[in-house]
This record gives sequence, structure tokens and C-alpha cells, in this order.
Amino acid sequence: MSTGRLTLPVQQGMDDELLALIDRLGADAVRNSDGTELPEVVKHLATKVYETYFVGRGDQQWALSHRDQTTRVYLMSRRVAAIGSGPLDIEVAAGYFAAQVAPDTDCDVARWWQVIDRTTGKTLPADQWNLAGAGAQAHVIVARPEPGHLYTVDFLAQQLWDPTQMYNYLTNNWADDPTRVREQPYDVRYPETWEHIKESLARWLDDHEDVDVVRFTTFFYHFTLVYSDLEREGYVDWFGYTGSVSVPAMEAFEAEVGYALVAEDFVDEGYYNSSFRVPTVRFLDWIGFMNRFVTDHVRELVSMVHASGKEAMMFLGDNWIGTEPYGPHYASTGMDAVVGSVGSAATCRMISDIPGVKYTEGRFLPYFFPDVFRPGGDPVTEANQCWVTARRAIVRSPLDRIGYGGYPSVAMQFPAFLNRIEQIIAEFRQIHDRTRGATPIASPKRIGVLNAWGALRSWQTHMVAHAMWYRHAHSYLGVLESLAGLPFDVTFLSFDDIAAGVPDSVSVLVNAGAMGTAFSGGVWWADPAIQASVRTFVGRGGGLIGVGDPSAHAGNGACFQLSDVLGLDRELGYSLSTNREPLSVAEHFITADVAGQSFDAGESTPAVVSVARDLQPLALDAGGDITMAAHEFGAGRAVYFSGLPWSAQNNRLLHRALHWSAHDETTFSQSMADDPRVEVAQWGDGAVLAYSMAFEPVTTVVHAGDRSWTVDLPEQGYVWLS
Amino acid sequence: MSTGRLTLPVQQGMDDELLALIDRLGADAVRNSDGTELPEVVKHLATKVYETYFVGRGDQQWALSHRDQTTRVYLMSRRVAAIGSGPLDIEVAAGYFAAQVAPDTDCDVARWWQVIDRTTGKTLPADQWNLAGAGAQAHVIVARPEPGHLYTVDFLAQQLWDPTQMYNYLTNNWADDPTRVREQPYDVRYPETWEHIKESLARWLDDHEDVDVVRFTTFFYHFTLVYSDLEREGYVDWFGYTGSVSVPAMEAFEAEVGYALVAEDFVDEGYYNSSFRVPTVRFLDWIGFMNRFVTDHVRELVSMVHASGKEAMMFLGDNWIGTEPYGPHYASTGMDAVVGSVGSAATCRMISDIPGVKYTEGRFLPYFFPDVFRPGGDPVTEANQCWVTARRAIVRSPLDRIGYGGYPSVAMQFPAFLNRIEQIIAEFRQIHDRTRGATPIASPKRIGVLNAWGALRSWQTHMVAHAMWYRHAHSYLGVLESLAGLPFDVTFLSFDDIAAGVPDSVSVLVNAGAMGTAFSGGVWWADPAIQASVRTFVGRGGGLIGVGDPSAHAGNGACFQLSDVLGLDRELGYSLSTNREPLSVAEHFITADVAGQSFDAGESTPAVVSVARDLQPLALDAGGDITMAAHEFGAGRAVYFSGLPWSAQNNRLLHRALHWSAHDETTFSQSMADDPRVEVAQWGDGAVLAYSMAFEPVTTVVHAGDRSWTVDLPEQGYVWLS
Repeated sequence: MSTGRLTLPVQQGMDDELLALIDRLGADAVRNSDGTELPEVVKHLATKVYETYFVGRGDQQWALSHRDQTTRVYLMSRRVAAIGSGPLDIEVAAGYFAAQVAPDTDCDVARWWQVIDRTTGKTLPADQWNLAGAGAQAHVIVARPEPGHLYTVDFLAQQLWDPTQMYNYLTNNWADDPTRVREQPYDVRYPETWEHIKESLARWLDDHEDVDVVRFTTFFYHFTLVYSDLEREGYVDWFGYTGSVSVPAMEAFEAEVGYALVAEDFVDEGYYNSSFRVPTVRFLDWIGFMNRFVTDHVRELVSMVHASGKEAMMFLGDNWIGTEPYGPHYASTGMDAVVGSVGSAATCRMISDIPGVKYTEGRFLPYFFPDVFRPGGDPVTEANQCWVTARRAIVRSPLDRIGYGGYPSVAMQFPAFLNRIEQIIAEFRQIHDRTRGATPIASPKRIGVLNAWGALRSWQTHMVAHAMWYRHAHSYLGVLESLAGLPFDVTFLSFDDIAAGVPDSVSVLVNAGAMGTAFSGGVWWADPAIQASVRTFVGRGGGLIGVGDPSAHAGNGACFQLSDVLGLDRELGYSLSTNREPLSVAEHFITADVAGQSFDAGESTPAVVSVARDLQPLALDAGGDITMAAHEFGAGRAVYFSGLPWSAQNNRLLHRALHWSAHDETTFSQSMADDPRVEVAQWGDGAVLAYSMAFEPVTTVVHAGDRSWTVDLPEQGYVWLS
Repeated sequence: MSTGRLTLPVQQGMDDELLALIDRLGADAVRNSDGTELPEVVKHLATKVYETYFVGRGDQQWALSHRDQTTRVYLMSRRVAAIGSGPLDIEVAAGYFAAQVAPDTDCDVARWWQVIDRTTGKTLPADQWNLAGAGAQAHVIVARPEPGHLYTVDFLAQQLWDPTQMYNYLTNNWADDPTRVREQPYDVRYPETWEHIKESLARWLDDHEDVDVVRFTTFFYHFTLVYSDLEREGYVDWFGYTGSVSVPAMEAFEAEVGYALVAEDFVDEGYYNSSFRVPTVRFLDWIGFMNRFVTDHVRELVSMVHASGKEAMMFLGDNWIGTEPYGPHYASTGMDAVVGSVGSAATCRMISDIPGVKYTEGRFLPYFFPDVFRPGGDPVTEANQCWVTARRAIVRSPLDRIGYGGYPSVAMQFPAFLNRIEQIIAEFRQIHDRTRGATPIASPKRIGVLNAWGALRSWQTHMVAHAMWYRHAHSYLGVLESLAGLPFDVTFLSFDDIAAGVPDSVSVLVNAGAMGTAFSGGVWWADPAIQASVRTFVGRGGGLIGVGDPSAHAGNGACFQLSDVLGLDRELGYSLSTNREPLSVAEHFITADVAGQSFDAGESTPAVVSVARDLQPLALDAGGDITMAAHEFGAGRAVYFSGLPWSAQNNRLLHRALHWSAHDETTFSQSMADDPRVEVAQWGDGAVLAYSMAFEPVTTVVHAGDRSWTVDLPEQGYVWLS
């Protein structure tokens, strides 16, 4: 029986069953579940013990006695129109959840708030408006509004409730539980609070000598999660820095970076610098500033953990803002490990690829919670879905460990589930054992994902709430999901990274996203240097994969600025008078495995038309517009997909498109299975792994080098070949 | 038997049948068919005689002896990328049809051509490129192109072939007919040609004393119709001024208007000022300049016609550019009549609403051509489709006459067709006879269609080729098609017309079109005065109907700048982090007649989301995004459709939406039929007409004032009630 690489949740009052489960599954670490204490028995186990630690909340006594040191958030009022005559009255916090946020009317509102005419985009001078009321009752009165104009108030607010704890509290009806309080966060930016945090951790480390791993959940600033007055999510951005602000932070920024930010730098017209927005230099400066501050402080805490003989582990979520695992300072914190939830191959790679930590751990689904583990629930299927998704990524870039969360008592009621995760854990260990830490052979053709964020958002592109499905993002997210399991080295490039030329190490650029967003690049494509860089790269032999609105920025006679390279463009309505010759689809290397099957482009870019006679259309929609095409440009090759939601078929299309655009058709057939639902990895020592993402049995031929095998794989099955 | 109001085509060699047909159908005018001569017999008829007259082509001897005076056209070369090193060679006319156009290399190309870097948008100084070769062989050599940049040549070309004659020549294989020549157009801008044109007309008028009506087909400048080297349409814009240019015209413009235009003012990045482009001031200046020139010259020709005792009729098409029937000078030409092809209700109104002429005539479909009048052809259905479409418009704004085109000999082989058009003609005359020229009662609520063109393009919005179906336009064209037959006075407003406030006479504004186009308004919505004007208008009680991307111009936190008025916005991907509450559709006045039926929004705007809690969603797509909604804003009301292709159902929805947004629900039920396929008109004298657009029998209740009738209408049937 294999052991190790597994963390299990534990709970009190079931010591015997717990020990049996730990033994059966070979767990070498245990952790307390959310909101629970570790049982006494764990002290006597050979396993490592993780315990969660909350830095910036949980000490309600401190929070309530230092209300001025709570965290802040920048918010925008509703858009209010001036229709009648006389002054305009704007209820500042209308629509927000009063228990979570309250306007900070104690600060110098003339300096830290902004009233903006959203018709002109202009900020009103402070003498043209005044504050009436305080806190939740705050109103702004615009003395002489322009008739027909729209006004908003950007306001600083106190965060009265930690968003995660608020979510848990409301979701679990903790209002009925007299032992629960609403935890108010406090801000490490205030020296007094920072000293208190360090003292608390020091005391905690002393008090918890049985704990081996301090699992920070997490640090100082929560991602943006703001409820509406309906007591439901109003705005949630897993990457959001809106809640990292405060007057001392803004003052420190000015002192350190050399210029002052204003409320609108955070409010961003109400889009709050969503990662879909092309980031401004000012916002990137803020991220850099906060990243330095947060990592400096994390480093101190990690040092304390190490000094106590323990390891420090970071949960990738909740109050993770400012840590930036793909940023320049993360490794310097000394963090030993990162743990995060695995919802897809892309989220798996987001964890496993983090540079500079000793090990990574993926928390697998489903959580041992009663919502799934109930009569009629199907935790086995959820476990399988999680595994076939994550396995593609794990093969390419192994997580070091996996783990589960929740309450073992509920999982134990489902023996079939325990059987299945026992297999999954064994399969996971086998990958490590057979490969001895080596990654499989990747194509020598390196892929560069080009967007406005570059490496900072490695594997994090197009995500809205963490790994959730969104109608308007899934057609792009599929590209990342594929890449996370395909045999290519993937690098993430910003436009700055390519402005002077695409790096020689890159063979194929991928530009995927909706028009105007950070992911297709938006205004970056108005930069002639960017256009010239990519056009020259392809013209001289490089590959380009465009998905959705690649290079889109309407102007100079095109929507896609690389329409000449792609051989097609998006019809914006300006060229309806141009006659488009009817297109016909022919056979092609890219579509060879899915010939005759319809192409699912998802919620894709409409109205894509040919602008080159030598375009090779590969799929058309019902109205004859292009959904997939290939085009040779100069010495290079470009491939276009109007959308590419995740599926085995689309994964295969992208796989082939990468080979074709890299002028490397031949090596494709040296490591693949005929059936697109089966993927193949091979290692330098000759080991070959074939693994199926199908939920039914598959018989197919597996190719590796000049070898081939016919294999029968059960549902989600795998086979090692050699 | 009724007579009059009907023009029939005639032909030679069938005098007896012709006389019988004229008598049977009661025609009071005859015309020669395209490319045929009038038979001698018409001189002895009581009917008026029309004869076609071509002003700017047809005299091939003149054309060939004055090759320098041919018309010109501005064109753009292909977009050519500089990938390698060394000079860039652009074949100027590559992709064009050499028999139609040839680069004009005899002009001062440094002045009249432009080489533009389409990566930067900058025009190259003339010393950075040079011309090699002449005419069709012209190349432009860019000496030192920027690597990776794209270049185009805007060039002046000679029009070697009149586009309509070319189309007829190629379509009918006239190359096999030794009597046919390729007719080269000549330009009235040259005084010598102008004098020749007048002399020719004077001679013709003298020679054609039997002709009563000179049917000009048409005047001086053809709409833009450029073939590709595949000898098929490459670019066709029925409103295009690209072919109205010449060196003397450009020089005259500078002298008259006070500044100089350049090639790019016409080439417009390759979009050639398509009517979907928001027109520039420079382009509008050119239209104004050409309109003055053309109408001045038309006026002279019309005077000559009148002096000879004849009438002048203009065919609305072919070389109609510069006449601008809805422009400021048209009535001053003295034109007696306009005739045009009726392909829809909107095109019918486009003809019948032209101000300042004595009468209008609609040429009905089908033409008596062998393509329809063949074994297995169904001319009756085509005639019915034309009639039910046109009748809606004729009821509201009557054409004075109708007519047919083609060869009577082919129609006579189809007695069922002759029976049906006999009925249609009788029904048309009955409308005139019963109403004695009065228009039916319209709602007192006046509708203003708001776009960047305003009155100049009355009833001409969203048209690509004349009344053809286009995937990316039909969802907007349906709005005009509905309005053409609904009981409302319709006015067309430009943004300038409303900048200082929406006119008091207007009750409901309609803004329909795709983002960035002239029809939704594009950059006009960045103008605070425009936003404020419409917002104030609605806020104080006005109505707004938005279709597609109303007020769309991304910025200041919204895509639709009137998102607050409409209660919804288009998701561009920036606000995916905003949680959208699930929407549910409730009963509403607007959807009362189509409850339970799915809404066909056509090729409509995707991703429309609610931004107001009090939005009333009326229809959602499969993904939950909005396709129809109503919203109260201040004292006013707004209605949104994501698209509104023409159908009886959508016509009814718009009809009700107009009443609802005008706060006039009650009068709706005073003039309507319960079945949306039946429309109702009533006149001041109490006459009521109910008419069905259905192709099957309909039984419904007709309401007029406090009267109502249950009627049974056959296919396309009608009934007069009183």
C-alpha cells in the first residue's frame, strides 16, 4: 500500500474511525476543518499537523477596540441622473449591505472621495458638492448639477465584516448560533495593529507546539467581495485590490512611488480594475506597491514560523491580495508551501507552477460537506470530474500533494466514495513514483500566451470568481484549460515583453479574449510597435493562434489589427457593402481527428469574415460566418477560433493547431492517441502514460515515438505503457 | 372597371395583345423596357408615354473621343505588409476588374493619391514613395517601409465602364452580341461634356415628340459598384459617393468650401464612407457640395424637358448620386415625378414621402423577366409578397402610381398572374378612390428616428444594397419596415437636430443600430449635450425605443450611455464580476398580443444585462440575457429590443411599445385587430380598412374607435368597414 502526499481533514469525537481512515488512505498530514478544532488524537500520530491561522481577523476584541484601524474599501454609489431642477441628492451607500460596509465619513472626504460627472467623465471640484449625514446615512449633495447629466460618488468605506466570514456566517445561518460573532477585519497598515498581529502569532506559535504547519488563511487583504443590500453577492473579484486601500496606504504610496492616487484609480468607472480591464499604469503601480508591502510583512511572519520550528503554508485565496505568487517578491517571503482549491486543470497549474516554494498542495473536490454527501448525492462523480480535469495538469506539472477538506464523518457514510478516492490517491502517487519527479517530454515549441497582464496572471486569465463558469468567459477559458494539459511549455507574456520583438524562445503566440479586454489586449493593439512585433514574428515564420477577438482594436480599416495575418476580420457593420465570396471548408491537418463533427465555438465572436483569398476556412456557422480558419502569412502560420470552450474535441483542435502553426506537424503523431478523449504523456526514460477523460470506456490506438498500442481504457481510465 | 394610376411596359411585335392588356388593366401610361424601343402603336394610344433617357453614358463616340473626361472613382489597394527588408512593392489595382477601372496615373499622383501606413494611420510624405508603371500596370514603391507595418495606396481611377451597363452586359452575356458595346461614362463636371449633354438632350427632345415623360435613368454619378477581378461585385454601396470624384471637382470643392479634400476623405480606411459609418463633417461637406452641383445641372435639364412640353421623371437609382431627394435642393430642380423599385414598405415610403414632386410611382415586383416567368416559376406569390409589403406603406403614405417592368410577352403566358395583378391594381385604385387622397388618422404621438444622418437618409437607414437582406442589418431594418406601415408620423432626426433639446413635436425617439455605426450614433454618444438632451427628454416624460445598441459608446462606466434610462447595458466583459440577479419575465402591455410566443430578436445584440432593479424584462435568451425589456425613467418610459427583424409579431410589439412609451396605451385599442397579422387604418370620414399580411385566411376582431367587427379575411385579404 502506498502512503504519503495526502492531507486529510480531521474532526473531534471519532478518533477510532479517523485513525482507520488515515491508515487506509495513507495520509501523512492532517488539518482541522473550517471552524473546527483539531482532536487531541492527532498529537500522537506520525502525520504532520496543519492548523489554520487567520492573521487579519478573528481577534474581535482588538477589532472593536480599534475601529479606526479596520480595513477600507473603495466603492462607487449608484449612477444618479439630474433630471429635475435644484440640487441633486445622492445616497452614498444605497444598494450596499450596511452590515458589511459603511462610508468612511471621518476621513477628509474632499481629498479621499470623488464626485464624478459620468456624462463628461470630469471630477467635480470639492466646492461643488458637500456631505450630509455620516456613516451609513451619508448623502452627497451636488449644488448645481448639469441637467441631464449622471453623477456618482466614489467613496471610501469601512469594512465592518470580513467577507469570507460574512459569507460563511450568512450561508450557515450563524445568526442563530450565540457563540458566533461577526468578525471585523483590521489592517496591518496601522503599526499598532501590525505589532499586535506579530504578538498574537508569537503567542499562538508558543501555544501550538503540536502543529507542524501553519496554514495561513490568509494574510492581510481580502479579494473584493461586496454584498448588496439584498444580502447577496453584489460584486466579487478574486483578483480585486479594491479592499487593500486606506488613507495611510494612499499616503505611503505617494511617498514611495512619487505621485498621488485618487479614488477613481480604484473605482475605475465602476469596473473596479476587473482583471478583464486593460490595467492602467497607476493600477499596476498600486499592485507593485502593495505587493512589496504585503510580501515584506509576510516575510516577517514566515520567519517567526520558521523560528518556532514549523513550516508556513499559504492558502491561495481569501485574504491573498498583495501576495502575488507569480510576482517578483513571492519567493523572498520564505513561504514553504501553497495550498489551493483545484477546480480545473488551469487552477491546478496556477498552484503547481508557482515558483520558489518547496511544495504545492491541491485541495480536491468534493469537500466533505453535507451538500454533496447526502441521500441522492453523487460524490463519486464529482470526485471523478475533479480528477480527470486535474490529472491532465498534474501529469504536466505535478502538484506535490493532494488533500481534501470538510468533515470525514460525512464522507465515511459513502463507502463507494472512499473506494474511489483510494484509487485516485494511489494513481496520483503512482505518477510521482513512476516518474521520480521528472516532467514528461514537452514539444520543443514553446507557447507564449500574450495578454495585458503577462506572467503576473499566469494561469489566472479569464477567471471571474475562482474557476466558476461564466457565459461570457468560458469560450476563452477553454484555451487555458487545454494548455494546462497539453505537452507544451507555456509562458505568459505581456505586451511590454514583446514590444521590442517576440522572444526567440517562443514558437507560437496565443492571443485569446474578447474585444477591449486585457486578455485580447484592447488599446495595446493601437501601438504600432506591438502590431509590428507580432506581424514580423509571424511573417518570418512564427505561429499565431487567435481566439475570439485577437488583436481587436477598431481602427485603420480593421477590427482585428492583425487581420492581414489572420486572413479574417470581425465585421463591425462598416463593410457590409463589401461583397464576401462564399466560403467552403476543406480538409486540413488541424481538423483531421474531428472531420465531420460540428465545431462548438461556445459564446463566440460573431460576424467573422474572410479578408484574404488564401484563407483556409475550417468551420462556418449557420449563417456562413467563420468560426475556425487557418492562414499562411509570409513564412508563418495563423489559426483562428471564434471561441474555444473546453471539450476533448476542442482540446484536440488546439493541440493540432499549435503543431500546425509551429510548422511541426510530424511530432504531433509521435505522442497522441487516435481518440481525442485520450491523452498521452511520455517520459525521457521511455515510460508512457495514456489517460482518458471520457466517462465511458474507450478503445483507441496510442502512439509514442515509433511505438503504438491498442488500449482499452475504462471510464476515466489510464494505463502505463513501455 | 377602374382605370389609371398604372404604367405598363410595352414591346414591339405584339400590338394586338398589348392593346388588349392595356385595356384590361386600365393602364394610363406605357414605357419601354430596358434596352428596347417603344413600338409605333403607342403613339396612337390615349396613354402617356415614358421613355428612358441616359444622360451620362450611351454616346460611346463621345466617350471614346474624350477619354480624359470619363468619370473617376477613389479606390484603395490591398493592405500590404512589410515583412522582409528593402523596398515594398504594391500593385495598385490588384484585385480590381481591369475592364472597369484603371489607375489614373496621368493626374498629379503626389497630390491626388495617398500612401498610408495603416499601422500608424499616418500618410507617407510623397517623397517616400514613387510610382512605377502606368494605368492598370501601376505599382507604388515604398522606399523604406517600417518592418511589420501595413501599407495601402489610395488611388484615383478612371471608370472605364458604367457599372449598371457592365452589370447588365456581364449578366446577360452581351459579349456574344455584336450590337452591344461597353458603355464608358463621361463626366458632366467637364464643361465640354456638359455642353454636349445638353445638346444631345435638346436634339433628343426634338426627335421624340411622342414621348410625354422623360424618364431619366438617371443623371451624372453612379452609386459605388466596383467589381473584383473575379468579375463579380466587390463593393456595392447604393449611397456611395466614391464615384463622384474628379480632379476638377476636388479643385472646385476647395474653391467653394474653403479647404482641400484628400483621397482618404473618400477611401475612409477602406470603408468608403459606407452609410453605416458615422459621417465626417468633411464627407457631409462633399455631399452638400455635390448636391448643389448635381441639382443645379438637373434643374437645367428639367427646364429643357419642360420647355419641350414634356414631364421629367427621375428613376431613384443607378446614377442618382448627388440628387438627394431628401436634401435641401431637390424640389428646386422642378422634377415632376420620381419612380423607384418597391422591395419593402420602407423602400415604398422612401419613394412616396419624397417632398416637392408632383407624383411618385412604385415599380412593383416581379419584373416580367424569364427568371421568374418560367415553367415552375411562381410569379403570383412574388406579386403577393410585394403587394402585402407595399400596401402597408401605401395605406399610410400613398404612392400616386404603380407600374411594372420587363416584357409583357412573358407575363402573358401566366394568366393566373394577370388575374392577380388585375386585383392588386384594382385594390390600389380603390384606396385612392375611397380616401380621395386623404391619409388615414395617425397617432398624435410623433416618432423621431434618431441617427447620425437624420432627414437626409429618411427611410434609407440600414440599407445595404437596395432593400436586400443582410445578416448584420436585418435586425435593425425591421424597425423601419414596421414604422413604414404603422399609424404614426415619422420624422428622421440627426444628432445636431436634438443637441439643444428634442423638438417638442416628438413624443418618442427611436435609436436603432449596431454599436459604432451611424444608425446607433457611435461617437455622437460621447457628446454630453446629446446624452443630456435625450436623458432629459425621457426623464421629463418622453419615450425612447432602443434597438440593438442604442446610445452605445463605451466609456464612463457604461456601453450604452443611456443605460440608466434603458435600465440595462451591454456587457463588454468588464463587469463580469458584478453579480446579476436572475431575471423573470412578467406580463406587460407591450407583449399582451404575443404572450407565450418566443421572441425572434434576429442577429441581435448579445449579453444585455439589467442595471436597474425596476427593469421589466419582457424576453430573455436561452442564457438569461435580455432581448426585450421596458423601463420607467423619471416621468418617461424606455423600451429595449436586442433586435427587431421584420415579422407580424415584431411589428405588433413595436406598435405597442410606441404606444406604451408615449404613455398612450388607450388609443392603441381604438385602431387595431386582435390578430397581429391584420392591420387597421381609419380615416377622418369614418372609413376603416382592415388588411391582412398573412398567407392564410384569418378571422379576427377589428376595432376602430368604439366600433368593432369580426372579419374573415382570405390570404392577403382586405375589407373596407364603416
